[in-house]
Amino acid sequence: MITHTKLGVGVKNIKRADINTVDGLAKIGAATAHEAQGRIGNMRPYMRPIYSGKRIAGNAVTVLAQPGDNWMIHVAIELCQPGDILVIGTTTSCSDGYFGDLLATSAQAKGVRGLIIDAGVRDTADLKEMDFPVWSKDISIKGTVKNTLGSVNVPIICAGQYIVPGDVIIADDDGICVVPRENAKATLEASIKREKNEEDKRKILESGTLGLDIYNMRPRLEEAGFVYLDTLEDLK
Amino acid sequence: MITHTKLGVGVKNIKRADINTVDGLAKIGAATAHEAQGRIGNMRPYMRPIYSGKRIAGNAVTVLAQPGDNWMIHVAIELCQPGDILVIGTTTSCSDGYFGDLLATSAQAKGVRGLIIDAGVRDTADLKEMDFPVWSKDISIKGTVKNTLGSVNVPIICAGQYIVPGDVIIADDDGICVVPRENAKATLEASIKREKNEEDKRKILESGTLGLDIYNMRPRLEEAGFVYLDTLEDLK
Amino acid sequence: MITHTKLGVGVKNIKRADINTVDGLAKIGAATAHEAQGRIGNMRPYMRPIYSGKRIAGNAVTVLAQPGDNWMIHVAIELCQPGDILVIGTTTSCSDGYFGDLLATSAQAKGVRGLIIDAGVRDTADLKEMDFPVWSKDISIKGTVKNTLGSVNVPIICAGQYIVPGDVIIADDDGICVVPRENAKATLEASIKREKNEEDKRKILESGTLGLDIYNMRPRLEEAGFVYLDTLEDLK
Amino acid sequence: MITHTKLGVGVKNIKRADINTVDGLAKIGAATAHEAQGRIGNMRPYMRPIYSGKRIAGNAVTVLAQPGDNWMIHVAIELCQPGDILVIGTTTSCSDGYFGDLLATSAQAKGVRGLIIDAGVRDTADLKEMDFPVWSKDISIKGTVKNTLGSVNVPIICAGQYIVPGDVIIADDDGICVVPRENAKATLEASIKREKNEEDKRKILESGTLGLDIYNMRPRLEEAGFVYLDTLEDLK
Amino acid sequence: MITHTKLGVGVKNIKRADINTVDGLAKIGAATAHEAQGRIGNMRPYMRPIYSGKRIAGNAVTVLAQPGDNWMIHVAIELCQPGDILVIGTTTSCSDGYFGDLLATSAQAKGVRGLIIDAGVRDTADLKEMDFPVWSKDISIKGTVKNTLGSVNVPIICAGQYIVPGDVIIADDDGICVVPRENAKATLEASIKREKNEEDKRKILESGTLGLDIYNMRPRLEEAGFVYLDTLEDLK
Amino acid sequence: MITHTKLGVGVKNIKRADINTVDGLAKIGAATAHEAQGRIGNMRPYMRPIYSGKRIAGNAVTVLAQPGDNWMIHVAIELCQPGDILVIGTTTSCSDGYFGDLLATSAQAKGVRGLIIDAGVRDTADLKEMDFPVWSKDISIKGTVKNTLGSVNVPIICAGQYIVPGDVIIADDDGICVVPRENAKATLEASIKREKNEEDKRKILESGTLGLDIYNMRPRLEEAGFVYLDTLEDLK
Repeated sequence: MITHTKLGVGVKNIKRADINTVDGLAKIGAATAHEAQGRIGNMRPYMRPIYSGKRIAGNAVTVLAQPGDNWMIHVAIELCQPGDILVIGTTTSCSDGYFGDLLATSAQAKGVRGLIIDAGVRDTADLKEMDFPVWSKDISIKGTVKNTLGSVNVPIICAGQYIVPGDVIIADDDGICVVPRENAKATLEASIKREKNEEDKRKILESGTLGLDIYNMRPRLEEAGFVYLDTLEDLK
Repeated sequence: MITHTKLGVGVKNIKRADINTVDGLAKIGAATAHEAQGRIGNMRPYMRPIYSGKRIAGNAVTVLAQPGDNWMIHVAIELCQPGDILVIGTTTSCSDGYFGDLLATSAQAKGVRGLIIDAGVRDTADLKEMDFPVWSKDISIKGTVKNTLGSVNVPIICAGQYIVPGDVIIADDDGICVVPRENAKATLEASIKREKNEEDKRKILESGTLGLDIYNMRPRLEEAGFVYLDTLEDLK
Repeated sequence: MITHTKLGVGVKNIKRADINTVDGLAKIGAATAHEAQGRIGNMRPYMRPIYSGKRIAGNAVTVLAQPGDNWMIHVAIELCQPGDILVIGTTTSCSDGYFGDLLATSAQAKGVRGLIIDAGVRDTADLKEMDFPVWSKDISIKGTVKNTLGSVNVPIICAGQYIVPGDVIIADDDGICVVPRENAKATLEASIKREKNEEDKRKILESGTLGLDIYNMRPRLEEAGFVYLDTLEDLK
Repeated sequence: MITHTKLGVGVKNIKRADINTVDGLAKIGAATAHEAQGRIGNMRPYMRPIYSGKRIAGNAVTVLAQPGDNWMIHVAIELCQPGDILVIGTTTSCSDGYFGDLLATSAQAKGVRGLIIDAGVRDTADLKEMDFPVWSKDISIKGTVKNTLGSVNVPIICAGQYIVPGDVIIADDDGICVVPRENAKATLEASIKREKNEEDKRKILESGTLGLDIYNMRPRLEEAGFVYLDTLEDLK
Repeated sequence: MITHTKLGVGVKNIKRADINTVDGLAKIGAATAHEAQGRIGNMRPYMRPIYSGKRIAGNAVTVLAQPGDNWMIHVAIELCQPGDILVIGTTTSCSDGYFGDLLATSAQAKGVRGLIIDAGVRDTADLKEMDFPVWSKDISIKGTVKNTLGSVNVPIICAGQYIVPGDVIIADDDGICVVPRENAKATLEASIKREKNEEDKRKILESGTLGLDIYNMRPRLEEAGFVYLDTLEDLK
Repeated sequence: MITHTKLGVGVKNIKRADINTVDGLAKIGAATAHEAQGRIGNMRPYMRPIYSGKRIAGNAVTVLAQPGDNWMIHVAIELCQPGDILVIGTTTSCSDGYFGDLLATSAQAKGVRGLIIDAGVRDTADLKEMDFPVWSKDISIKGTVKNTLGSVNVPIICAGQYIVPGDVIIADDDGICVVPRENAKATLEASIKREKNEEDKRKILESGTLGLDIYNMRPRLEEAGFVYLDTLEDLK
């Protein structure tokens, strides 16, 4: 196996994370999973959902696409299984609408849960009506051609993250987190602990207790040289 | 007639596309019209609706505006007719709020269907309440002055497209398509055919048949040298 | 008192604008307040609400934060009072999610009305459910550390505007306006007059009277050399 | 003749501006020509020269290219004559390197004076050595394919300007100005007058006389309500 | 004195930093001054010199300009003295060429050392030949009008920094630092110490001694949990 | 070995490409190497050299850095050998100046050939004088702290490319290409063939033979439906 990406290749069989683990992560937010796996895996924040209120997780079926060319997405759909998420990177930045309601219909027929694309989509009103969630860099009416080879199910870069086919993708209104397949179970467990911990903190904070005290920050502030002044007039 | 833009001029009478054709195009999406007229006419995707769920078409009344100056919009509104869409380009990129609820009230009184502006707007909550749809580059509280001449109803550039007054504009959640007036009828007819064709394809795709097979892509993939591998381990 | 910003300092007591004045400004839009105080105070339009439909005003409690570090927000919350808005600038542009549901819980417990942050936030679905409005540059799953000193309640720059602690912030779907504390009362009064004036104009415009005539623009257009042509054919 | 762009077409014979006029404009700066023709024709300022110190003018041979595809540039070179400048727009924004030293060799053999491309170029060190000047949006090592039709010598949009084949392009370190062929002679004459005028003003300004007095701005400042204060302390 | 900006005002007399201090800071880099005054005062890095190799310092004469309007620059030049630097902010982002060789001639006649402008300039080849250094956001052939009031010598925001007239500006190839007038002497002294310190460190580093050891970082790395592995195979 | 990145780890021993192969690639341009290895490995074109005219190649020593924190660069330098290039990615986009003349002095003492950083640098005049080439996203006077762990010599993402420590980096005025260590020799061989081929083509093109004929494009153009028209008047 090579770890860098490659053009002109499609991999038929990939290892996927256990679907129960994936479904567990679908209940966890992308932000929580990011913290729980050690603060890595965050796609760049220019990726935005085309409609809000969705939280999904799935195994990545990856596509490396050429600018203005969606040929490889057709290849990828054949290789999808229920529980998968299509993840599309490009060889160069492009805003075109690579994906619309027809491809979504086909993907949904295969059980695909959604799309992450570091480029553009179209037919967004239809996609919302079909409840096929998409996170994209752009929304564009301009379609694409089917002329130049990319790859399917090879390692890719999407929005600043490295994705191996079968990695777990968690996406919601806050953004997208990539969890390597091997870390999925551990990340789920750490996320559940973290959520419990946060729930406890939320109650304490609601009561008016300050983060300054919960996290015992006052001595560290003093040590770092932080100075309190009474009023702005004391600022000089 | 000159084809390039010019400053300091207002054209009173323009040829418009037949309103039935325009209304027909209002039912077609911007993406479909873009394909149907030969994959041209797409405004750049940084143009976004200020609220979602609208699909309109209309004849372009064009404005060329100076940075931070909306004087010409007042000139343009007098020249509008029911079924028109205001289309505003600028001599230089500017994010200011050129248009708000007062101008929208005036435009709506003239039967204007919406606004396309390669700059900023404001009073967006009011515009939504009035159901006056706007596609813009920016939303900004900063207003404009009325000091420097631009033009009205001359050819302009807006978001990377050339618009002659009277061209048909189609705008929806996916973006904006410009259809030259002379092509409007043919584009409508091609769009309707295309929609029918897509409807058929959608049913086939829903049944699980793949795009790979519908479009007979397998021989072309092989000819282009695309290689299927069994697993990632075979990747080298 | 110094007027430039400074690191490593927290000011405990700040002068705030009268809460009735603040509440009055909360009914005025940011765009109207911007006009009423002489067309200044507009934050850059890349600042966007994480959910639409909110209009708030409050006294600024300011934070100067380091890239990827939200330590100072914890310090700031202790110094907040009911009616305040947290306003966060950074020493360098950063998209990280500095603020999430836990900090919002703590802020809400102190009566804070919302957050303006020239950086990123996360837990946006929770923030919406809590009805804690936020205007931000980014939405990001990536959290921050608590290692490097910034400041609290010093003058800061946020989205291109200078804010002294206690200044009034007005935020809505159109953007954000900063009103210096000393100008708050006068700005409210001017805003109310302006709204009345606009209401009158709206009625006249609804009736079909043109801005060209209301503002008596025709002589100025002619004086500036604006030329009307009959048709595009006359354009040369 | 149609005025909007079209795909899949190459126009063999175009009208060019008189070469003496073009050569005259080559001595005038792009900024001066922009003023002289009435402050229009400015390409967006993201277009930058790949090396500084060049000032050229030429007749536009236009290319409309697809994303990541330079097929049409080969078609265009055949249609070039000495004194031409290649001007390339794209159907969608793309940063790829469409043009390098081989195409420049071929273009130079045809007498082409330079390249304006609203996309990327490569082999910039070679282009500089060949003294083949280029103004581009990007510099990129990524090449392009030759698979999808665009057009040659049709009207295009490049960096926010409309260009008809045969229009005059003036490019230097300040940017790029488009002069419609029909206006070339008049623009040259107006530019020469303007330069003379500026030379006179430069001498007056060098002597210390102020623009305030040369342009008689003081009464207009007063009329507009401009107020001089003695010191910052008077500012309130 | 008010601390926020204001429109329609020009302040004739401002306090400047001692010219010897300014000249001392002209020998210090912007980066060093930024560190020496406590890591504040850095303008955003989108500001770039129009030609490289210059390092200047001067007292700020400030201009607040409207989009596409350079009227106030003419007002400002009258108020300049030898040793000053023009610093121009705008009420809204604009790329137009506000400043060219004529204004530079006038500014140079008054002894102005350079220009910092959060917008565009033109005539850059002339400016380089005159050796009048400029740091700007854009270079653009598009000129401006003289129609709308801004202000001169009021506090402004430029590229994310707050500048009071008379503050010291230090600019070089790395960027721009603002030093409040009151801090100028202390910053110069701290900068000189810092430079001496850096010179010593440079010699030690040249000899091959590591920063890890000079700054005694190894214990802190261990304490923070940093783990050394022998090879990539140990990474899991 | 894991293929995704990880925080808090430093790998001491990495496999490097043969130095003769690296030196061979240093003579090949980044653009040629990109083509020769199958059109992959191109970093995004926002990465630019701080001074032009350099072409280098080296083995990557990788750094994953936190926003505004250069601690890990100090750790990395100890692990560098002659012939290495430092390659720095960040966990989130940041423009700060992570690297200046002191770190360059230390790196040069270890034989490091240059720096690739998806963030900012400073002391650029010194770096040029030292002839220490840098390709960066930004230039910024703002320095960084040393508080938060990243990693050294783990796989990273830099400017959209995945880099394993020991991969070969080729950088010049056109941009940056990553060649996986295992492919270095084959890429060098393919590059040399490609250069020979290009040299032959250059001579043919210089003689005036067209790319249309060399690449036998005319039949494909016709097959694709490309239509030649005599004049613009035939365009409809």
